[in-house]
Amino acid sequence: MTDPRPTQAELDAFLKAEFPQTRCTLEAIDDDGVVMAHPIGETELRPGGTVSGPVMMTLADVALYVAILARVGIVPLAVTTSLTVNFLRKPRADRRVIARCRLMKLGKSLAVGEVWISSEGEEEPVAHAVGTYAIPPQR
Amino acid sequence: MTDPRPTQAELDAFLKAEFPQTRCTLEAIDDDGVVMAHPIGETELRPGGTVSGPVMMTLADVALYVAILARVGIVPLAVTTSLTVNFLRKPRADRRVIARCRLMKLGKSLAVGEVWISSEGEEEPVAHAVGTYAIPPQR
Amino acid sequence: MTDPRPTQAELDAFLKAEFPQTRCTLEAIDDDGVVMAHPIGETELRPGGTVSGPVMMTLADVALYVAILARVGIVPLAVTTSLTVNFLRKPRADRRVIARCRLMKLGKSLAVGEVWISSEGEEEPVAHAVGTYAIPPQR
Amino acid sequence: MTDPRPTQAELDAFLKAEFPQTRCTLEAIDDDGVVMAHPIGETELRPGGTVSGPVMMTLADVALYVAILARVGIVPLAVTTSLTVNFLRKPRADRRVIARCRLMKLGKSLAVGEVWISSEGEEEPVAHAVGTYAIPPQR
Repeated sequence: MTDPRPTQAELDAFLKAEFPQTRCTLEAIDDDGVVMAHPIGETELRPGGTVSGPVMMTLADVALYVAILARVGIVPLAVTTSLTVNFLRKPRADRRVIARCRLMKLGKSLAVGEVWISSEGEEEPVAHAVGTYAIPPQR
Repeated sequence: MTDPRPTQAELDAFLKAEFPQTRCTLEAIDDDGVVMAHPIGETELRPGGTVSGPVMMTLADVALYVAILARVGIVPLAVTTSLTVNFLRKPRADRRVIARCRLMKLGKSLAVGEVWISSEGEEEPVAHAVGTYAIPPQR
Repeated sequence: MTDPRPTQAELDAFLKAEFPQTRCTLEAIDDDGVVMAHPIGETELRPGGTVSGPVMMTLADVALYVAILARVGIVPLAVTTSLTVNFLRKPRADRRVIARCRLMKLGKSLAVGEVWISSEGEEEPVAHAVGTYAIPPQR
Repeated sequence: MTDPRPTQAELDAFLKAEFPQTRCTLEAIDDDGVVMAHPIGETELRPGGTVSGPVMMTLADVALYVAILARVGIVPLAVTTSLTVNFLRKPRADRRVIARCRLMKLGKSLAVGEVWISSEGEEEPVAHAVGTYAIPPQR
């Protein structure tokens, strides 16, 4: 039985193919999970210089997906079943947002993970998410 | 004391000014809440014809924001503090998604609301969200 | 194939057998879902006359469970996978709390429902919950 | 200005006074948060030897409350505004459940924290919770 786990390059290629419009980038994979980033520019800011909440929700959702694929192999049919996001602080307008995702549980049909999001180079988290993904049985 | 509640046209103008890139549109306001919509096209679909989760999260977040503004007046500093989304069914790839948002609580500093999302013309919901917004004190 | 749906009396008997210590009571079942209640006395109050949050979480959890059993038949192994509760207002100290639970989705392996909780005789909700249950395949 | 932070003995005394029926015990306080425990016996088990979900929700709720009091001083009016719990694995029927709570944010009016729950002596978490508390302004 071969190891289903893709390399970072394989995951990156998959991400670019499946989400051609995504601005999320895969920064690192390790045994604990994955690190992803999203640039912040005009598109991501709201008046007042706030990073839009949906940017962080999108990043959290993609990070969970990639963290699952990094463990079970590339299963494009995994779907989000729930996501809870708490917004904690105002992110910086001039830095990327970085998401660190770690799986809490990876069952046969359900994966649960958490994501901490912070502005690049800052310690305090700006948002925290917990999400669940359904993993299709046929793998 | 004047009624702080904006008209649908005022809210629509505000939405276009504050979120110039948004594709969410305000369809209706009534005493219970607001109805908003999001078109579905290439940008919103993932391979397999699934509407991307972040599209629905974005719509839910904006619908909550607009439902609050419809009640308290245009307070551009209200910020999302939490959002929980449950994805229930696969939306149709060929129809808009429609969000009906109703506030559960509108306190001085915190508003809580729920959003039901369905494909236009369908009865079964495709997603449900509950969100909280912090309302700044100076209004 | 026989209808798996139990009567209210059957559900009530099951509830008393499986949860001998519960103070939750089944008040009604209809096509939309179930209504359950919990008495409020010394045990449920915290200093200041507040109904304890865990009483409402317990009631929400049991109401979801019973709403699922009312539809799929008595499947004692269904387990809660997530519960999100928003506390909206202070319940009355001198009335029962009433939970109305409605399922949003009843899939083969996952059920999602919402629960509105209010003080008996009052219209405004005191809490709202959304929960998911995993339903075991062997039924 | 005096340090508002209570000692572990003071918090323990407060907990016993405010929640005379609680079976939750305070095990440790440190700069990161608090550790609390709940015994498991007949009352906490459901048929099949499963620890009841409400026991874990109650423990999570109390742990968040105590973690806030440990930082801001004994403010008995802090109230839970939301709690999201994900149940991950079946706890052991023969061991206490242990909750480790850490605050993510402690603002003037809102605190957000997470709680990891595991069976005593086991590494894998059995549940994870994220909760928000409203802190009254007059302190």
